[in-house]
Amino acid sequence: MALIVAKFGGTSVADVERIGIVADKIAREIALGHSLVVVVSAMSGVTNQLIQYCADTSPLYDAREYDVVVSSGEQVVAGLLALALQKRGVNARSWMGWQIPIRTNDMHGKARIEGIETDELHTRLGTGEVVVVPGFQGVTDAGRISTLGRGGSDTTAVALAVALGADRCDIYTDVDGVYTTDPRIVSKARKLKTISFEEMIEMASAGARVLQTRSVEIAMKRGVKLQVLSSFEDHIGSDLPGTLVTSEESIVEEELVSGIAYDRNEAKVTLLNVPDVPGVAAMVFQSLAGAAVNVDMIVQNISSDGKATDLTFTIGRADLGKAMETLGSVETLKGVDVQSKENLSKVSVVGVGMISHHGVASKMFETLAEKNINIHVISTSEIKISVLIDEEYTELAVRSLHAAYGLEQDA
Amino acid sequence: MALIVAKFGGTSVADVERIGIVADKIAREIALGHSLVVVVSAMSGVTNQLIQYCADTSPLYDAREYDVVVSSGEQVVAGLLALALQKRGVNARSWMGWQIPIRTNDMHGKARIEGIETDELHTRLGTGEVVVVPGFQGVTDAGRISTLGRGGSDTTAVALAVALGADRCDIYTDVDGVYTTDPRIVSKARKLKTISFEEMIEMASAGARVLQTRSVEIAMKRGVKLQVLSSFEDHIGSDLPGTLVTSEESIVEEELVSGIAYDRNEAKVTLLNVPDVPGVAAMVFQSLAGAAVNVDMIVQNISSDGKATDLTFTIGRADLGKAMETLGSVETLKGVDVQSKENLSKVSVVGVGMISHHGVASKMFETLAEKNINIHVISTSEIKISVLIDEEYTELAVRSLHAAYGLEQDA
Repeated sequence: MALIVAKFGGTSVADVERIGIVADKIAREIALGHSLVVVVSAMSGVTNQLIQYCADTSPLYDAREYDVVVSSGEQVVAGLLALALQKRGVNARSWMGWQIPIRTNDMHGKARIEGIETDELHTRLGTGEVVVVPGFQGVTDAGRISTLGRGGSDTTAVALAVALGADRCDIYTDVDGVYTTDPRIVSKARKLKTISFEEMIEMASAGARVLQTRSVEIAMKRGVKLQVLSSFEDHIGSDLPGTLVTSEESIVEEELVSGIAYDRNEAKVTLLNVPDVPGVAAMVFQSLAGAAVNVDMIVQNISSDGKATDLTFTIGRADLGKAMETLGSVETLKGVDVQSKENLSKVSVVGVGMISHHGVASKMFETLAEKNINIHVISTSEIKISVLIDEEYTELAVRSLHAAYGLEQDA
Repeated sequence: MALIVAKFGGTSVADVERIGIVADKIAREIALGHSLVVVVSAMSGVTNQLIQYCADTSPLYDAREYDVVVSSGEQVVAGLLALALQKRGVNARSWMGWQIPIRTNDMHGKARIEGIETDELHTRLGTGEVVVVPGFQGVTDAGRISTLGRGGSDTTAVALAVALGADRCDIYTDVDGVYTTDPRIVSKARKLKTISFEEMIEMASAGARVLQTRSVEIAMKRGVKLQVLSSFEDHIGSDLPGTLVTSEESIVEEELVSGIAYDRNEAKVTLLNVPDVPGVAAMVFQSLAGAAVNVDMIVQNISSDGKATDLTFTIGRADLGKAMETLGSVETLKGVDVQSKENLSKVSVVGVGMISHHGVASKMFETLAEKNINIHVISTSEIKISVLIDEEYTELAVRSLHAAYGLEQDA
């Protein structure tokens, strides 16, 4: 008799037939006596189509109207899932973000949830009704539709789990858990039974597209029991063969390295001979932030003569044009040589074990050197080492590192 | 400096390019100093797709969830049009039915508008902002999304024109006005400069799909100046070559017959030897109303012996299965022979002039007899004569009647 928040991603609600399979799964959980809140994504491909419509209509669009357009995909699936549940004799109704309401700030396009009204939902759940919620959307204080950014349905699910005090939050995706690396690149990639919140955050931000980073942050902060499961396998309840994302302490057998993540979507910008005076770096990154360019890795070389320095950072490839334009308009940087490079990949080794073990980084550099893979930029955190390499070496690097850290599953 | 409500139908917002053309048109009206409220339909084909999703998910669907699903098509176009206007330097924002709000009763799927809040809209219009409204949708007192039935965007436009006290309501469609009959059947069909509300209602309910009947009813009752215009021709303002729908008194040169309408979508049901006692007809039609079957024409023959009678009525072809099932379950009709016939068309002659002229009906019957077209059912109102014929004679009947009443345009 648990209260479960279950989230189903795009491929698991790709068409009416798949939505029916999801309804079957939920009906079985209800039959076991559980209370269910179900968060749904848009049908796969729909959100991209809607974003394309906005881009085609107006390249520099008003994010408030963008939110009106792109939030509609989840609305359709929520209505259809409620219908599919009713057809199976399960009492259900859809709740739009503005109906609950799920209140967010007014950062349209990437809003943050500020509060969720739960009294009415608790009442409905108490009567056995399934609460169906379109993910990714909320409503601002001004009463306008907001969205939470790509992958935002994960965050909707975790935030609902927190607000409702759910026993667990199940994220159903098109993979059956979190793997040591992408199984499409390394056939011997191994599914992890557990992974710590910290590692999951690093894996997600390093390019593993299983969970939205923000959703894991909230789950960690509020102690939500989070599971990643396959929507295509017929498992229900808690005897699940997915991956449990949990606190570090509750992981008994800690591994040195949990996984290898990669992100092909990187571009590098280098500012040569920047005046080495205080405030220059701040100005560079403030101007980029003002243009909504997210900066990932940052490296600054020590200047040999103390007068000038080289500043390198990485950004998403889609932002490169905007970044170059922004930097070109900064007065202080007039005369500074700004160079950029595309076709780069970030490859990361993630693991809480590396905090207490030496040699993890050196093994990474040795492995890549053996394959003659040149490293452009290195960036480290307590539980992650990331390197920037030429994109064409991505698969080779991932496979070599996966083997070097002994992550293969037993044959 | 007029306040104009303009509605754009599905083909005029079929894709991003067409939405841009609509935005150009609105921008020109704004440049003339007018205030604009724009009501949009979903992209053509989208609503049918969404209805199909609902039907595939659950044949007997909850109309409340159906409304959640099908209202999304207009939402997308409203957001995109606001973006397209902003791109052209026109201040604009979208307003969902629940944001205005447009209050309706709770007859989901075919709700009626009960009230529209206009204070905020007037304020926005006063600042020169264009108000973009998704047609077809509203919100119930329970805070749920409702829709107004097929063609409901026309009704949204007229209701907004009434509530805001607009100077006129322009309905942009894929035809450039109301014709004496379907130009696809009769190449010499003539565009009407004016048509009375009454005639427009009869034409709409007789199958001419230019305007939703309900929208014309409201316009007539509240005296809204209603124009039907082409969204593909580049006319703006009031020098428009469309059709003005107006009150009978303001039409100077009244024509005997204004147009010939047809509807291929008819089915006929005949109950043979029904007991000729009071209350039987009432029971038949109450049971059909309970099953949400709309009955169109009704004919009852006088019984020769005063004991039994034949009752014939017509319904939409899609409702035939449901109607036969419903009648089969009525206890009093046990033993009554119920016959049905599909593949029928209704052809109607419409004109306010026929009130004061004799011979309109007899000319219709003579014309059809000359072509050996058999009439199954006849039904008349003050300004309309409808006959039910075999569907295969539809084009022949329409062409012959159009010629017989002298409706051709000058060669």
